[in-house]
Amino acid sequence: MTMSSFVGIILLLIAVEIPGSFQHDRGHSKFRGPQVSQTAGTPWPMPLSYHTQATFTYVDAGEFKFTDVDESSSCSILEEAYNRYFPLIFGRRPETLFFKSSFKAPTDAMTELMVKLEKPCKDTDYPMLESDESYTLDVNGNQAMLSASEIWGVLRGLETFSQIVYQSNDGGFVVNNTQIVDKPRFNHRGMLLDTSRHFISVPILMTNLDALAQNKFNVFHWHIVDDQSFPFESSTFPNLSEQGAYDPETHVYTQTDIKNIIEYARMRGIRVVPEFDSPGHTSSWGYGQPDLLTKCYTGSQPNGQFGPVNPVPNSTYVFLKSFFTEIAQLFPDHYMHLGGDEVSFACWQSNPEITSFMKKMGYTSYSQIEEYYMQNLLNIVGGLGKGYQIWQEVIDNGAKVRADTVVEVWKAGWEAEMEKVTKLGYKTLLSTCWYLNYISYGSDWMAYYGCEPFNFNGTDAQKQLIQGGETCMWGEYVDGTNVISRLWPRASAVGERLWSAKEINSAFLAQSRLTEHRCRMVRRGFQAEPITGPGFCREEFGGV
Amino acid sequence: MTMSSFVGIILLLIAVEIPGSFQHDRGHSKFRGPQVSQTAGTPWPMPLSYHTQATFTYVDAGEFKFTDVDESSSCSILEEAYNRYFPLIFGRRPETLFFKSSFKAPTDAMTELMVKLEKPCKDTDYPMLESDESYTLDVNGNQAMLSASEIWGVLRGLETFSQIVYQSNDGGFVVNNTQIVDKPRFNHRGMLLDTSRHFISVPILMTNLDALAQNKFNVFHWHIVDDQSFPFESSTFPNLSEQGAYDPETHVYTQTDIKNIIEYARMRGIRVVPEFDSPGHTSSWGYGQPDLLTKCYTGSQPNGQFGPVNPVPNSTYVFLKSFFTEIAQLFPDHYMHLGGDEVSFACWQSNPEITSFMKKMGYTSYSQIEEYYMQNLLNIVGGLGKGYQIWQEVIDNGAKVRADTVVEVWKAGWEAEMEKVTKLGYKTLLSTCWYLNYISYGSDWMAYYGCEPFNFNGTDAQKQLIQGGETCMWGEYVDGTNVISRLWPRASAVGERLWSAKEINSAFLAQSRLTEHRCRMVRRGFQAEPITGPGFCREEFGGV
Repeated sequence: MTMSSFVGIILLLIAVEIPGSFQHDRGHSKFRGPQVSQTAGTPWPMPLSYHTQATFTYVDAGEFKFTDVDESSSCSILEEAYNRYFPLIFGRRPETLFFKSSFKAPTDAMTELMVKLEKPCKDTDYPMLESDESYTLDVNGNQAMLSASEIWGVLRGLETFSQIVYQSNDGGFVVNNTQIVDKPRFNHRGMLLDTSRHFISVPILMTNLDALAQNKFNVFHWHIVDDQSFPFESSTFPNLSEQGAYDPETHVYTQTDIKNIIEYARMRGIRVVPEFDSPGHTSSWGYGQPDLLTKCYTGSQPNGQFGPVNPVPNSTYVFLKSFFTEIAQLFPDHYMHLGGDEVSFACWQSNPEITSFMKKMGYTSYSQIEEYYMQNLLNIVGGLGKGYQIWQEVIDNGAKVRADTVVEVWKAGWEAEMEKVTKLGYKTLLSTCWYLNYISYGSDWMAYYGCEPFNFNGTDAQKQLIQGGETCMWGEYVDGTNVISRLWPRASAVGERLWSAKEINSAFLAQSRLTEHRCRMVRRGFQAEPITGPGFCREEFGGV
Repeated sequence: MTMSSFVGIILLLIAVEIPGSFQHDRGHSKFRGPQVSQTAGTPWPMPLSYHTQATFTYVDAGEFKFTDVDESSSCSILEEAYNRYFPLIFGRRPETLFFKSSFKAPTDAMTELMVKLEKPCKDTDYPMLESDESYTLDVNGNQAMLSASEIWGVLRGLETFSQIVYQSNDGGFVVNNTQIVDKPRFNHRGMLLDTSRHFISVPILMTNLDALAQNKFNVFHWHIVDDQSFPFESSTFPNLSEQGAYDPETHVYTQTDIKNIIEYARMRGIRVVPEFDSPGHTSSWGYGQPDLLTKCYTGSQPNGQFGPVNPVPNSTYVFLKSFFTEIAQLFPDHYMHLGGDEVSFACWQSNPEITSFMKKMGYTSYSQIEEYYMQNLLNIVGGLGKGYQIWQEVIDNGAKVRADTVVEVWKAGWEAEMEKVTKLGYKTLLSTCWYLNYISYGSDWMAYYGCEPFNFNGTDAQKQLIQGGETCMWGEYVDGTNVISRLWPRASAVGERLWSAKEINSAFLAQSRLTEHRCRMVRRGFQAEPITGPGFCREEFGGV
């Protein structure tokens, strides 16, 4: 922990010890009836250093604007962010409490947020694993200043500013005197969405990108295809989705869709890391690329079933090179996720071509042929100048990977695996404890919140290799009907774990802030479900 | 089981044995890619007797109308139902597959459904526990006839008709030759919604009423208030919601809201049974009716906490009589639910007034004072000419209830309780196994589907007392953001259990029909979540 974060914690604790300083006009209740524990104007995730006082100022919604300290350092990413954050702060609907237009701000109200971007941004900037997302935010009376080195830090700071402005009971927007010095604990704060088991439409993916940005996530891990369907519309191999999508006309992501998603994410400082998982989880590839998969045998005859990608013929690698060349061009991120998980050996074992190849190569275990496949694939993708993210099995099977490889740990027993992978010197991500598809009754967010990526035996150097983690929503039981409400705000718990200091780990202290954050998301139009028990939001989803 | 239902089962089994007869043009897939097991044009819940053939006819969406065989027997309930069902069958959106306007139906297509209502309906009819919901539906070539004795049967038959018409791959609407003789197995097929732990807005309650009707439920058990909040706006005691609602301006149901909900439900053949639970679960009542609750003591002093309703003072019963007189007038249903569950004795034990009253009455157990309270309440409500529904504890504590009382069994060990309550001769409902608020990963609908209300030791006469059951959605973790997707189609499993024959109990056979039904609900605009594993709907929620 750095010195500045230590100071931050101390300041936070002081603030928590004098809760009266938070209370000015922040209560929702004008009567002696039921109260709900909720903060107002407190950010989620908690910044590294957060100091706020009882002194507050009104913010004049009618006059308010974002002001560049140096206009020449601005770019379209920043201009669009301003357009986005204005309604996020002040709302769109004059008829609701969220924007009570009848309120007249006093003349000394705040009318601008000064934004100082040190390193000029370009319209084409794309976020990276190494991007600097740090920022400082200082609110003092009616003066407010947001400073950051990179555009990505400005985006995070704008989100924080939009959260510390809150609406008081008189209808006016207010902000307390606040000093924030913030940067993420981890560089990689991701969410995996699976669009193969069920299709998720582009508008819903975009809604989720908004939610990600507002929870300071920065990676959309797009598990785009799998056994069940192949919705990716390839320009090189159009048959893959023609034959492998649930419906080749409606249940596909066109090249334009994908470019739109990437652009939408980029504007919000979110990287899109596509996953084309192989050699397992590829049933749907076989419809449109008939010779790709291993034929399974019963006795001496093919039985009509197919297994993982056939690692033997040269045609497999010709296809993969051509296919991943397209992917590498379409997705600008440095990393692509190559999967490599859960390869079943049963079909390979039944196939005489595999058996004879094993003999020829002197392999004694099917892990070796899996490694053979992955190594070839890794070499192809490495040759395209891309880095790759992989599931832990690839390392467990002993493949040789690039130095910049990111290994994703997902299996039970993650502590031992993290120890092992970091000992090998690889960048590592944790996802095991954040599988949001596994639902259970009650406040399950507390378990996600409590999962600490550093809880494994390792040196400081090993801990430094932890890049963060990913929360996963596998698609067996979610689609557009329920994916947003099932993700949010449960994923917000992971968001704070990955952004905030290690010491911010009390679910008890987090609960009232998370309750406020949930209501903020509802007010902003997300179907963020209640997860902290009975209560209410001033503005409910679907009106009140 | 009656003879007609027996015939129905046989016919169904025959149909299942020749699945080819269901397949004409019902597949969704034009290619050799992933297939999803799904029926087309099969109703949910399964009718008592359902016979369908491969022969089909087109239905002309442009010309189609509902025709009264005898116009003089019609009423506004029927006319509104026609208006409702037209778009449910044919859709509203010409740009989607759901309504492909370019399709030209052949000249011999079906253009009307004849509707024969034997007992004329009146604009003011209100459904009852004893209502007759039976109907017959006969589709033969381009001729279709729906017959029922009561308007409520016509509503159920219209729903079935709207489900057996389906869209084929050419865009045309078709219906197979079908003969249906149908009536519900149970008279009371209810859903409890709790609007106290979280508020649910009127539009969302109405959306849910539509879903209930389309799953042939007929009771909305409205658990309207509880400890956490009192959103019911009483005209007699306005302070109850003024002080007890989460927000007295926005988080309340006005008298107009309630009348609108009742009317919306009535039009769909759904009874609204309000529950004002007492003497426990009443914390929120105490804010606006200060002397109603028992003061809890520490030693000889009140400690500022409150317990259940104070059963001692006369003022309690004066209040209850006045309050329930208003409720009895506002809600037209014969039954109201009086609660009576989970009364904690700790506060009563601490209170000297209660102790001295117990002494005076010669009570040796706190169950007796609970019974004393409930007996007084039951007498008050009985005196208003209303029947009542109660939780099982009231009977367990030995209160004397009206002969027409409906007892709701909700605790674990329901088999023994059902045996006991029916032995006492009371009408009984089961809800224990249908608490949809308790979520778990995967296809949990199968357990709801498999819960058989007759699975207890009892005579035929005892079984005859089972009126059906209720599925419950308690509000700790749901509100407008997730209540619809969490309820549907999980509640549909309960819907079929309560409507269809006992022998329709194979989750394996039900799965493909439920998958179709889920997609039908999605197409109709409900956020009905996927619960049968990977797959897709031709039309997804939020577009494709």
